[in-house]
Amino acid sequence: MSDHSSANGIVYIVGGGPGDPGLITVKGLDCIRRADVILFDRLVAQELLAEASSPAEMINVGKEPKRHRRAQEEINSLMIEKAREGKIVVRLKGGDPFVFGRGGEECLALAEAGIQFEVVPGVSSAIAVPAYAGIPVTQRGVTTAFTVVAGHTAGPDSEIDWDAISRIGTIIFLMGVEHLPEIVLQLTAHGCEI
Amino acid sequence: MSDHSSANGIVYIVGGGPGDPGLITVKGLDCIRRADVILFDRLVAQELLAEASSPAEMINVGKEPKRHRRAQEEINSLMIEKAREGKIVVRLKGGDPFVFGRGGEECLALAEAGIQFEVVPGVSSAIAVPAYAGIPVTQRGVTTAFTVVAGHTAGPDSEIDWDAISRIGTIIFLMGVEHLPEIVLQLTAHGCEI
Repeated sequence: MSDHSSANGIVYIVGGGPGDPGLITVKGLDCIRRADVILFDRLVAQELLAEASSPAEMINVGKEPKRHRRAQEEINSLMIEKAREGKIVVRLKGGDPFVFGRGGEECLALAEAGIQFEVVPGVSSAIAVPAYAGIPVTQRGVTTAFTVVAGHTAGPDSEIDWDAISRIGTIIFLMGVEHLPEIVLQLTAHGCEI
Repeated sequence: MSDHSSANGIVYIVGGGPGDPGLITVKGLDCIRRADVILFDRLVAQELLAEASSPAEMINVGKEPKRHRRAQEEINSLMIEKAREGKIVVRLKGGDPFVFGRGGEECLALAEAGIQFEVVPGVSSAIAVPAYAGIPVTQRGVTTAFTVVAGHTAGPDSEIDWDAISRIGTIIFLMGVEHLPEIVLQLTAHGCEI
């Protein structure tokens, strides 16, 4: 899907990486520099936005926690509209587009609208943040598996299978601060040492 | 650990990404270009090696499956020796250094030897390969968790907790081709639809 030949534009769904602007991919940075329009999320580094060309249209579509600045449908419509104007559109997200990034939903919307698109994976904070803290998510002789869980689903009426995730290996919760007490309670109740 | 002030050199443990040379990080590529010595793995893209400076020493430390071309200890010793010569050393790996990359062991060896080092995370094939195949590892309304498993540990006398991993969400096996029949057998026996 990388051939940009139709009258329509193209949408690049780009993972911006875990925060350090040096951790975006070479391909992702190239997309930012070539973009006519950039729709960016709240957690994207300012240094990455500064790489856009000066005439590029910059649209902040960041969702605050619990207060969706623009609903997902509006983001989808914007991407489709700009691509139909023949533009190179970059949908710039924190981390990786497919790790709790709603990239899958955006791909579906673009495919249904007949818009050409490409996913440019990014370094996920699920792996890089532990790395920067000196914690390998796998380690020979310690663990040969890891699980990544959406921490915001860990509330009291959670559907998380705590027994199962406690039995596998490294467990990484993203967006887990709000439910941290519940997470600690459940893990220790299911035999994890913390 | 990013200050390069001692008489000793420094080792950058760099994730080269999942194969597409455009998916290395900007920081990782910068390390390759600045390196005096590069110790690289079997699965690293030729295009990335071509980015090294012309006087850089290139050392293939790739391990063939079941035939370790150089034992891990030899790799550790080489990194330490080159860093002690005051050189900028890049240890270039496929994927991410901490996802079954033995990056943790190499960090331990460097720390014990008093060598300055830095980990540069990479895009993991665990997430990017499904992405390139059109499969998001998480998807709203479908799954809010995923597990990554070392497939080479899935043989008949495996210690994998098949019941637990079958109950969580998306399951990604890396290096699983050899044991694919066993993996399919176990997952279907534990209620997964394939």
